[in-house]
Amino acid sequence: MKTKVTDRRRFLQRSAAIAGGLAVVPAAGTIPADDATLLAQTGGSPSTDDMNSMDAVLYGRRSRFANVVRRIEGSSSPDGSPPRPSPYRPSARTPVGDLTGIITPSSLHFTTQHLYGIPDIDPASHRLMIHGMVDRPLVFTMDELKRLPFVSRVYFIECIGNRPNPQGRSASDTHGRMGCSEWTGVPLSVLLNEVGVKNGAKWIVGEGADGGRHGKSVPLPKAMDDVLVAYAQNGEATRPDHGFPLRLVVPGMEGIYQVKWLRRIKVVDQPYLTYQESSRFLHDDARTQPNSYEFGPKSVITYPSGTQRLGGRGSYVISGLAWSGGGAIRKVEVSTDGGKTYQAADISGPAMPRAFTRFHLPWRWDGSETIIQSRAIDEKDSRQPSEEEFMKYWGMTRQQLYRASNTRLGHCNWIQAWKVNTNGDVTNGLPPINVVVTDVHEHA
Amino acid sequence: MKTKVTDRRRFLQRSAAIAGGLAVVPAAGTIPADDATLLAQTGGSPSTDDMNSMDAVLYGRRSRFANVVRRIEGSSSPDGSPPRPSPYRPSARTPVGDLTGIITPSSLHFTTQHLYGIPDIDPASHRLMIHGMVDRPLVFTMDELKRLPFVSRVYFIECIGNRPNPQGRSASDTHGRMGCSEWTGVPLSVLLNEVGVKNGAKWIVGEGADGGRHGKSVPLPKAMDDVLVAYAQNGEATRPDHGFPLRLVVPGMEGIYQVKWLRRIKVVDQPYLTYQESSRFLHDDARTQPNSYEFGPKSVITYPSGTQRLGGRGSYVISGLAWSGGGAIRKVEVSTDGGKTYQAADISGPAMPRAFTRFHLPWRWDGSETIIQSRAIDEKDSRQPSEEEFMKYWGMTRQQLYRASNTRLGHCNWIQAWKVNTNGDVTNGLPPINVVVTDVHEHA
Repeated sequence: MKTKVTDRRRFLQRSAAIAGGLAVVPAAGTIPADDATLLAQTGGSPSTDDMNSMDAVLYGRRSRFANVVRRIEGSSSPDGSPPRPSPYRPSARTPVGDLTGIITPSSLHFTTQHLYGIPDIDPASHRLMIHGMVDRPLVFTMDELKRLPFVSRVYFIECIGNRPNPQGRSASDTHGRMGCSEWTGVPLSVLLNEVGVKNGAKWIVGEGADGGRHGKSVPLPKAMDDVLVAYAQNGEATRPDHGFPLRLVVPGMEGIYQVKWLRRIKVVDQPYLTYQESSRFLHDDARTQPNSYEFGPKSVITYPSGTQRLGGRGSYVISGLAWSGGGAIRKVEVSTDGGKTYQAADISGPAMPRAFTRFHLPWRWDGSETIIQSRAIDEKDSRQPSEEEFMKYWGMTRQQLYRASNTRLGHCNWIQAWKVNTNGDVTNGLPPINVVVTDVHEHA
Repeated sequence: MKTKVTDRRRFLQRSAAIAGGLAVVPAAGTIPADDATLLAQTGGSPSTDDMNSMDAVLYGRRSRFANVVRRIEGSSSPDGSPPRPSPYRPSARTPVGDLTGIITPSSLHFTTQHLYGIPDIDPASHRLMIHGMVDRPLVFTMDELKRLPFVSRVYFIECIGNRPNPQGRSASDTHGRMGCSEWTGVPLSVLLNEVGVKNGAKWIVGEGADGGRHGKSVPLPKAMDDVLVAYAQNGEATRPDHGFPLRLVVPGMEGIYQVKWLRRIKVVDQPYLTYQESSRFLHDDARTQPNSYEFGPKSVITYPSGTQRLGGRGSYVISGLAWSGGGAIRKVEVSTDGGKTYQAADISGPAMPRAFTRFHLPWRWDGSETIIQSRAIDEKDSRQPSEEEFMKYWGMTRQQLYRASNTRLGHCNWIQAWKVNTNGDVTNGLPPINVVVTDVHEHA
């Protein structure tokens, strides 16, 4: 065995030698490694709390010590108290800095409600109508839909308001409006083939059963490609705050396209500007720049990221997420010197199209202040730009960039940087800016 | 667009034509497809239950209409009432027939407790000791472990008691003792390289912090290969009933190897027979047949499966799970005529090594009684055997097969069949047998 593992052998000690004898794992080895250590540990008596209750056996619960939660969206109070959601607008961010892997737990997946809260839908009475420019309009019950051909695919969903921000304290602040799930449902192409799309049709409009009847137009070629009418998320029924019992999943496109509580699909000849779009979410270029619908390549380092703390110099693994609306991630590069040089990170697991891709890079921190950042390259060879490159493309100053509404800028996929301070604290690594950064959610 | 989708076009009508005009979706089209249909639907008012509560915003909940639960393990009462778990042994099965995709929701993932229930462990005081035949014994805190190199991998975990059974009513009865998660943790090889494995060492023994100090020996080559010391499952902290805060994940090997509440790893020169093994779970061949540690290729159809019901003849999609301890699934074949002929199913998504692989096959049911079944072939070209082939290999009669303890038989990977009855009811498709089928859990 030893010859096979030479390259990984004594990771800690080798690092320690490089760092001048500083132990990488500060406390390891300071506790006597004998049986007495173990006998003093937890064990012997079962939990007295509710983990062994019948309800917990039927549907498992997390430990009372596991306390990662979503970040509530909402305006901060003038007195600095935590934001409180309106009962009709319970929006929340994914705690991306606290999660691992590529699957976002459904309970921790970001959710954006607009004005009307989460409808309480009985799937037995829910219907999906498909009509408009079709040969045969149809109405489906949930049971009928579940009998049709279905697929399971891993896709990210991201809000357009998910973007780098020099004022964000954590990765959740900057990139908490995204999540990635294994979605199961009927390909929309199956349904459209059933109803028979008429000549001249070019778009579909999806509409939800929420109080606001949220609607969004999707180009027909995309609708016939990889769009799902999804009834399951991560193996079980889609959650209420993600569209129970039915939602559109439009891979790689903005969150607003992923119509929740889907009850109607109308086949039409032009994009409809629905109430919400025309009043609050209008893209200036929605009709003229179809390429802008897809998110470009993006990435963010989640460990170490803002509000986290390194426990002294030594060896670490930098890890983060990369994703692209344009397809699969081909490569992720990480810089630990503020962008002067980059090296290729390991991609862990399959790099699936329009799904989160997890990357890792071993890194030895020498204890000095530095900036770490990542950039993604997708299968179309599109590369995530720096803030400077992004500004140049849009012809904007930095002040203009951060004061611009996200909806005027297209997809804000420039690089987010984190600063590792000499005391180990990790803070935002983008240069500070003295403007009120615009948040698309403030308009909602 | 039309030319691109010719092969899928008019799935329902084409099937209907084949079936002689019978609509595949019985009710579709019977409801008027007009706006009045929609206006009568749910919508307009937010939920009045707890979905919009602060707690649900912080950590999301499922719909009150989503009621899939785990199946409680336990001896049936003589009066036929449902089994009741002991408070100290809350074991439960995955409802595999109700789930989609390859990721098992953590709340619905099977769990087996032996005698001592789920310990209530504070991760701040939990330690992992690695000692025995090593150069430098070490004790790690959770914070120290999380600083080490980590990976995320999708792996199944399966109990040896997961096996075909002619008396099982559902896929959960026969194959509910398995689940598949995205696990994150430190490769055990990293830890073993740190402590320095001495010459002559050949095994490791993992031990849990439960009251029973569950322990299991793992061959060193496997320990240095793909074993994880896992602290996260599906993105968040491993659940209490799956080992919070730490468990061994030993990909492709029996559930008993996946030591939960891991607190100690001892490097040794021979396998230890721990108390639980010697008293209750001894494999006769544990020391002599190392190949038997890995599950062979297995599969089960989850839709349609026992207790489900088809809504009349027409087109369906048969779907199920395939997995192998030997690596990735290369192919899945499905028979709809009781094994006379097989056809290749579609494999949906990536076929990852030692992970669930989801398969689908479109099928037109003509309304007559038939037997459906699947068989998997893995990357080692090993094929899932029929019941007859399995009996022949072990030199057993059918009565002997089903009366044998699972632990005497190695891995019970023969084919599970489902019968589709003329009324659409799906029942067990293995021929009935007039013996009390042995269940490994009855010995626990």
